[in-house]
Formats: sequence, structure tokens, C-alpha cells
Amino acid sequence: MSQKPSRPKARLPRGFRDREAGEIAAERTLIETIRRVYESYGFSPLETPAFEYTDALGKFLPDVDRPNEGVFSLKDDDEQWLSLRYDLTAPLARYVAENFQTLPKPFRRYQVGPVWRNEKPGPGRFREFTQFDADTVGSNSPAADAELLMMVCDALEALGLKRGEYVVKVNSRKLLDGVLQAANVEPARRGAVLRAIDKFDRLGEGGVRALLGEGRKDESGDFTKGAGLNNEQITSIMTLFAGAGAIAELDQNLAEDIAAIQALASRSGYAEDRITFDAGIIRGLEYYTGPVFEAQLRFPVTNEAGETVVFGSVAGGGRYDDLVARFTGQQVPATGISIGVSRLLAALRSRGLTGKDQPLIVVLAMGDTARSFAAARELRAAGFRAEAYVGTKKVPDQLKYADKHGAALVVMEGDDERAGGKIAIKDLKRGAEVAKTVETRAEWVGARAAQETVERDRLVEKVRDILAPKA
Amino acid sequence: MSQKPSRPKARLPRGFRDREAGEIAAERTLIETIRRVYESYGFSPLETPAFEYTDALGKFLPDVDRPNEGVFSLKDDDEQWLSLRYDLTAPLARYVAENFQTLPKPFRRYQVGPVWRNEKPGPGRFREFTQFDADTVGSNSPAADAELLMMVCDALEALGLKRGEYVVKVNSRKLLDGVLQAANVEPARRGAVLRAIDKFDRLGEGGVRALLGEGRKDESGDFTKGAGLNNEQITSIMTLFAGAGAIAELDQNLAEDIAAIQALASRSGYAEDRITFDAGIIRGLEYYTGPVFEAQLRFPVTNEAGETVVFGSVAGGGRYDDLVARFTGQQVPATGISIGVSRLLAALRSRGLTGKDQPLIVVLAMGDTARSFAAARELRAAGFRAEAYVGTKKVPDQLKYADKHGAALVVMEGDDERAGGKIAIKDLKRGAEVAKTVETRAEWVGARAAQETVERDRLVEKVRDILAPKA
Repeated sequence: MSQKPSRPKARLPRGFRDREAGEIAAERTLIETIRRVYESYGFSPLETPAFEYTDALGKFLPDVDRPNEGVFSLKDDDEQWLSLRYDLTAPLARYVAENFQTLPKPFRRYQVGPVWRNEKPGPGRFREFTQFDADTVGSNSPAADAELLMMVCDALEALGLKRGEYVVKVNSRKLLDGVLQAANVEPARRGAVLRAIDKFDRLGEGGVRALLGEGRKDESGDFTKGAGLNNEQITSIMTLFAGAGAIAELDQNLAEDIAAIQALASRSGYAEDRITFDAGIIRGLEYYTGPVFEAQLRFPVTNEAGETVVFGSVAGGGRYDDLVARFTGQQVPATGISIGVSRLLAALRSRGLTGKDQPLIVVLAMGDTARSFAAARELRAAGFRAEAYVGTKKVPDQLKYADKHGAALVVMEGDDERAGGKIAIKDLKRGAEVAKTVETRAEWVGARAAQETVERDRLVEKVRDILAPKA
Repeated sequence: MSQKPSRPKARLPRGFRDREAGEIAAERTLIETIRRVYESYGFSPLETPAFEYTDALGKFLPDVDRPNEGVFSLKDDDEQWLSLRYDLTAPLARYVAENFQTLPKPFRRYQVGPVWRNEKPGPGRFREFTQFDADTVGSNSPAADAELLMMVCDALEALGLKRGEYVVKVNSRKLLDGVLQAANVEPARRGAVLRAIDKFDRLGEGGVRALLGEGRKDESGDFTKGAGLNNEQITSIMTLFAGAGAIAELDQNLAEDIAAIQALASRSGYAEDRITFDAGIIRGLEYYTGPVFEAQLRFPVTNEAGETVVFGSVAGGGRYDDLVARFTGQQVPATGISIGVSRLLAALRSRGLTGKDQPLIVVLAMGDTARSFAAARELRAAGFRAEAYVGTKKVPDQLKYADKHGAALVVMEGDDERAGGKIAIKDLKRGAEVAKTVETRAEWVGARAAQETVERDRLVEKVRDILAPKA
């Protein structure tokens, strides 16, 4: 190890974070629940590496103008550019193109893992986050899209969400393009029009009309310049919000996919309260070619600023029939949906829908470590979570440690106990409760009732007894 | 999407790989098993990000001479260098230094996840692989080391390994340094001496003596130059292999840690057949300051070249009391052990110790998708893994798909069946078995016994009946 003149500072890289026990356990439960649902549908797991060749990954991030913006890239020692994946769809397209001949078609896979975005971090916006994707490649049937949406409904309900607390919305790029074309929207105005449509949920018809036209002044008095369409164009575009039926009258072909998806979902028991058409669903990614999806949570949560907001989108996706063709030149129909694991987790935690830790027992070190190890081992063999203290501190400090570490019970075998063939168990939670109500010294002594001494060979039995009603 | 003149080639980056269902499921089982054992010992999970600032990560990889060799690094947009973690220990040191005041001490955490090494890939040697680490920070007691070793034994046994199939070996850097010092080994010869000692397992006493002296000619006639020590020095160093007892006579203090670890392990029921001293354990990493560990599998496996070899190391670690001090200047005792998940998985799979997939049922699409969706949904609700075919192919092609996809059963509701309120179930495994023994056409017709038609409302019952004895 070389001697350095100065010490490095211990600090997390900007936009990244450490995650601790509670969040990790909750995320594990969430991922396992989704995994069970997806596997029950016959989807198989796939894991692609963190890196892809930069040219294979392509550049499909929304809101990214400059080349290489948005991804972490570096040059390999053979001078080829590598990038960390920014989603799980582009690597899937590479995998399918590379293994096309040997894959069963349709190929249905799920993948869960971190993705990286080289973007400006902000509150709640990290440069590493987890996605859970399911995709069906090799089927152009609306059944493939419908199945994904029903599967997401099942996953959300398996996670404890109730009917009405979530909704999966469907729109179609074809529909959108058809309506824009019918309204003679110039390509230059397309971005402004899409941004206006995207705000229907929040601003309603009046707001969107204003943004499609001259522009709109918000409550604070700020003015947003509009797309500058004329009244005829605006009316034509607003047809979108009259529902899929109205659009089918406009052009049967454009709404065909959506009608088929909705009919199949509805006949399978997933009615409009769960899977519904919404012309306001845009999805930023360039590569979608047909239906686009978004799963939204409808209940209010408190955000980081302490404000009550509707939680909104937790999953999104759509059909991307051209992505494999980037490699092979041959179109391969594909559709997928991606759950934002961290966002969904935040929503579930705000509702208390994630599991609790197993209670921890700390066995103090009281001179003979082999004996505390033995007690911990017995407790573990009985199915408990038991830690033998391995530091070198005095008993009061060890008790503080157990408390800080969130232990439920402390087990102690001091010289006196050992001589008498006994062992002491202290119930930290009960001790803390009793202490709150203690008013006199006599009561304080009584509070030691939270500590019991039992025969050494009744340790497991007694611990089971104490923890049983709480577990 | 910009029009490109040429198409990218779909290929994995060099040294990376895709992983498919069987391996992913086996690794998940392995990780969950280790996790359960580690949690039962009271270790808590921690997740640090993929990236660290390069200066915070430090350069501790073995066999790396040039700066930046071995790690993937890139410059952030604020001109700071970031590196992907090459192990889970350096990020832990950063985390502990950053959060020292608020952590319970000892701080015991486990972390499992990918690490990246920018090294030349080779057969079975990838640039992304998974490690499972457990560390205890803030205790200089040998109890902390001993506990980690026992915990690894428990984890290996929980994975199905038997006594005698694995061993955890312990050595000490202090011991090694003491012996080298006592033998007056010059710093320049240190590397060659360590490499010689490292080969004791393979070459035995004679081979190591030769490598410590002039050198050694192997069976193929190749000559390896030795460390050039004199006989007195060689004899002094060979004391190492006479066992910890002999070394204790040499210098009581040096062997103290190892004696304490072994005594505690042995009194806890982990005798020398499981946790044992081995002077040949070197561990390449620079940062170890005391005991070093290595868990080895002792059974023979067939390697990629078809040769039978003893599997060898699946975990390694040791005490690194100076790693947090890199940041804070204050020494914090720490010890840890890291399981190489991919290596251990390969060993377990070679023994058939990893679980099997749940059987898959494919419901064919026969005209009315909502009906096949309903059948699949019923089967899933009953706990089966059931896929509704979402492609658009004809029945024989769908049957081929089910076969290729490894389905156990196929469910079909054709027009005839539907009209009669029935549904057909085809047992693909049984069909294949029967087909093998078919000799006459009459038998071939009989082989259709592998297909049965039942009342539609008895579908779940019948599937349960067919799959029960196999599950």
C-alpha cells in the first residue's frame, strides 16, 4: 500500500445512495412477489450484463439531445466503447437479435436489476435505480399486450393494492400519429402538442386547449407558450379525449389494437376500472410503435416536501416492433412493461404494505464467548434470529448496543446465573414500555419484571414464549 | 431515431455473459440460503452503489501493477473520477468511515451483488461476477473472526454440503510476517517466497523447499526460478507447516489470534475437520493485517477441459484493521469473508445440489384467446405455473413451442372440446417416454393415452392429479 500524503474523503458519489436493512428487506419482498406472479404466467428470468457495447445499446432516452448524454460510457482496452445499460429493453433487443435462431417464439422473459442514467441527480432522483421488466418478443397479437397488462394488475394486487387504488392506462402511438396527421400538425409543432396532451390529467380540457393554441397562464401568473394550432386543429385533436369509441369512428384501423386489448382484458375480468384507454398517455421513449402503457397509483401520498400528491406512474411500456430490426434488419414484433421498483416501493412503504423484520435476540458476551455462542446457536437452530455479541465492551455498553441495533430480547449468562445453571432474558420492548409509565422508585424496581431468569435448558422455550404473541 | 447507414452487430461485450433461467434460479436459491443463515446470526443487509469515487475505492487488487489497471473508471461531468466497485470491502470501508458516528459497534453487515474487474477475460473468468460478503467492523476480538468462519460452515451445510466436503482454513499475516522477519527475508524476495508458500498444497514440502531455494523443474521439464534463500532461511520458513503449535513455540504473540479462533471454534463444535490452520493460505489482497481465511471444497469436479480436479477455494477473507483508517486516520478493527457466488454455484450444480424449476403448463391459443386466458388463470390461481400462448401460430407449431420451452403439460380447448364442455390435456413428458418404446402402429395410437379429455370444470383437479407425483 503506497503512503499517501493526504487521505481521501469518505463520501458517496453524487446521485448515488447506500441502502439499509429496512429498505432492502422491503424491496426483496416486493421483487419476490412480482417474480412469483410473472413466473406463474410462464415468464422466465434472463440476466444480461451491466455493460453493452455503446453502438448496440442505441440512444433512446427521452429528453436527451446531445450524443452520449444520459449514459455512463467508457472505452475498453481494445478501444471499443462500452456503456452501462440505461434500461432493460435495449439489452433484450441485443440478446434476441444475437440468439434469435435458438429462442422459442414468442420469447417471454422477465428481468430485474439496476440501470444507470448519467443525468443530473435531484431529490428522489438517483443515477442508479432498479427496474422490473417483462417482455414478449415474437408475437404481434394484441393478446401479448393484454396479457402483460393483466399480469401487472395481478402483481400490484399481490403486493396488497386494492381495486381502485391502481389503474393501467393504454394509448396507442398509431392513434396519436393518426390524429396529429389528420389535424395537419407540422412536425415542428409535434413536441409542443405532445407535451400539451400529456397534461390532460392535470389541466383538463380547458388547459390542454389553451396549450394547443396560444398558450396558458397558470395560477401563479406564469405564461406557458402554446403549440399555436388553429381552432379546427385543436378540435380535431381533442377527439382523442372522447374515448376510443369516438376514435374508432375517426379511423377504425388506428384504434383496432386498443379495442382488441380492451375487449380481451374485459372478457378476462379486467374491466375498465383496471385497464382503460387514456389518450393522455404519451411515454417519452422514441422506440414505441403501437400501444403504450402506464400503470398509475391513484391514492394520495405525502411527498418529500410534505405535500399531499397523487402518486402517479409506477410502470410503463409499450410495443416496439423495430428494436430488434436495428440489428438484423428484420422486424420482430415485441411488447413489454417495466415497473419502477424504487418508485413502487416508496408508494407501498407509504401505505405500510411492506413486511416487518424478524425480531433480533442479542446474546451478550459475559466472559466465556463459547457459552454465548452456544446460546445463540441454540436459538438459531430453533428458528430465531440470534446474534452473539463479538465486541469487547462492558455489559451496560452491550445493552446500549442491543438497544441501538433494534434487538427485541437480550440474553445474558453472568457468573451467578451460570453457577446456578440459569440464564437471564431481558425484554427490551417491554422494558421500554414499562419505563415510560414509571413514576416512583418502587415502580422502577418493579420494571425489572421485564427481565427474567430461567433454567439454562429452558432458554429456547422461554424465548418462544415471550416472542410468540408478537411474531 | 436517426437513420444509420450501417446496422450495429448484436454481440455481448468481451468478458461478459447472459445468464438464463436455470442458472438464475439456482443462484437465487443459493443466495437466499446464505442470506437466511447470515440473517439468523444477526447480520443485516447493506447495499452500496455500483460506483464509488476512484480515490475512495483505493487500489487493492492483487497482481496489479499499473495504476487504474483492474477497475472500470470514467470521468463524471464534474471532472471527478468514478470507478465501478471491484469488491464489496472497499465500499464498506467508505460506508463505515462516512457513517461511523451513527453505526452500532460492532457493525455487522452482509452484502451480495455484482462486482466488476477490468481484466483480461478467459475461460470461466468473467469481468462481472457476484460476491456475497459478511463483515464485522469495530471488534478486534478473535470471536468476531471465529463467528464468521462458523457462519460460513453453516451456510455451506445449509446448501447441502456434507462434513468432509469442505474445510475452512485459517492463517495469519502476522505469523507470516513474523516468520519472514525471523528468517531475515529481504523485502525484494518477499513476493517469490509467498508464491512458493502458496503452492504447498499442490507441491508438498519438497516442492516448496526447491522454490524457496534455487528453483524447481516441473514434470514437463519447465524450470521455475526460486526465491534464492539459504538453507537456514528455508528451514526457518518451513516451521510454518509444522502447525500452529510449533509456531507458538517460535513466538507466542504471533500465533495468539489463530489459537484463540481455533479454540473458540472447537469448543463451539467446529473441530479441525471444519476449521483448521493452514500455513499455505496467503490471500493476495494487500490490505489484510491479521488472520486470513479461505473456504475450500474438497470433492473432485470435472472442469471445462473435461479434467477431474479438486474444486478448491469458494470463499476468502481476513482481518483488515487499517482500511477505515485510510479515510479517518483512526484505526477501526474489521474482519470479513467473501463467498464467490458464481464459483460456489458451479460446484453445487456439478453435484446436483440446486433446485428444480416448477413444471410449466402451456395453454394453447385455439381461436378464442379469452378462453385460453381463463384456463391459464384458473391454473395459476390453483398454484400452477401456466402460460397462455400469445402468438399467432397453428396448433402443431404451438405444440413444438411448448416442447422447446420445456413445458410439462399442454392444455387445449378446440371447437369440439368446447362444444362438448370439455378440455384436452397432453402430458408431454409421458408422451415422449411412451414414444421411445413404441414399436408398432397400434402402440403408437395407444401412445395417445398421454392425452386425455376431461370435463372443462375438472381441469384443475385433473392437472393436479397428473403433476402431483412428479412435483
